[in-house]
Amino acid sequence: MSSIFTKIINGEIPCYKVAEDDQFIAFLDVNPNAKGHTLCVPKKEVNKIFDLDETLYQDLMVFSRKVAIALEKTVPCKRVGMSVIGLEVPHVHVHLVPLNDMKEMTFQHKVSLTSDEMLTLATAIHSNL
Amino acid sequence: MSSIFTKIINGEIPCYKVAEDDQFIAFLDVNPNAKGHTLCVPKKEVNKIFDLDETLYQDLMVFSRKVAIALEKTVPCKRVGMSVIGLEVPHVHVHLVPLNDMKEMTFQHKVSLTSDEMLTLATAIHSNL
Repeated sequence: MSSIFTKIINGEIPCYKVAEDDQFIAFLDVNPNAKGHTLCVPKKEVNKIFDLDETLYQDLMVFSRKVAIALEKTVPCKRVGMSVIGLEVPHVHVHLVPLNDMKEMTFQHKVSLTSDEMLTLATAIHSNL
Repeated sequence: MSSIFTKIINGEIPCYKVAEDDQFIAFLDVNPNAKGHTLCVPKKEVNKIFDLDETLYQDLMVFSRKVAIALEKTVPCKRVGMSVIGLEVPHVHVHLVPLNDMKEMTFQHKVSLTSDEMLTLATAIHSNL
């Protein structure tokens, strides 16, 4: 069965898209640790990040860096944190989280935004790419 | 003033070293989230990861991947997680954490190992590089 991220990539599930190219997509996490929390995902469905071949891994890291720099321009924060865990969805995803406090990297503190806020935010990050 | 990581790089503070090359060093975190928690650090002292130039950033990510693969061979775990936060030490460091449970990525759950266990572990990871 396809992962939830493959369903997003295929347009079967909607997302607040931030960036996309041939190999990767970035969209807002719908259960964000902080405003602007974004996921960067390879279109190839692989479970564990260090199982990606070195080239695809490097390309994912470069894609994530571009999104992170746009995110930092868009959302006021001390810095953008990056995390790859993957114990829940078995499809590689890089979390990018605008940080003001360590609690935003614990994945135990969540914030809530309206659909309008999410759409405005995704558009703003995209425009800073 | 030099960061604590620069002091480690310069040999002023000891560490349980896992890997080193011209640009980077990897050593065990002395306050680990889980057994095998390793930090990968560029020798160039830069505060924020996305401020590294793209080449040094890519090289750091490739170095971290090699260490992560050795770590996964050495420490039984579901997968190796990766995190970059940096709110405490203003010198880029990539956390690599052998994960069996989400709590190991919250930075709120710590484990304790003896010096002998740390030394044996660092040697074992190094031998799997």
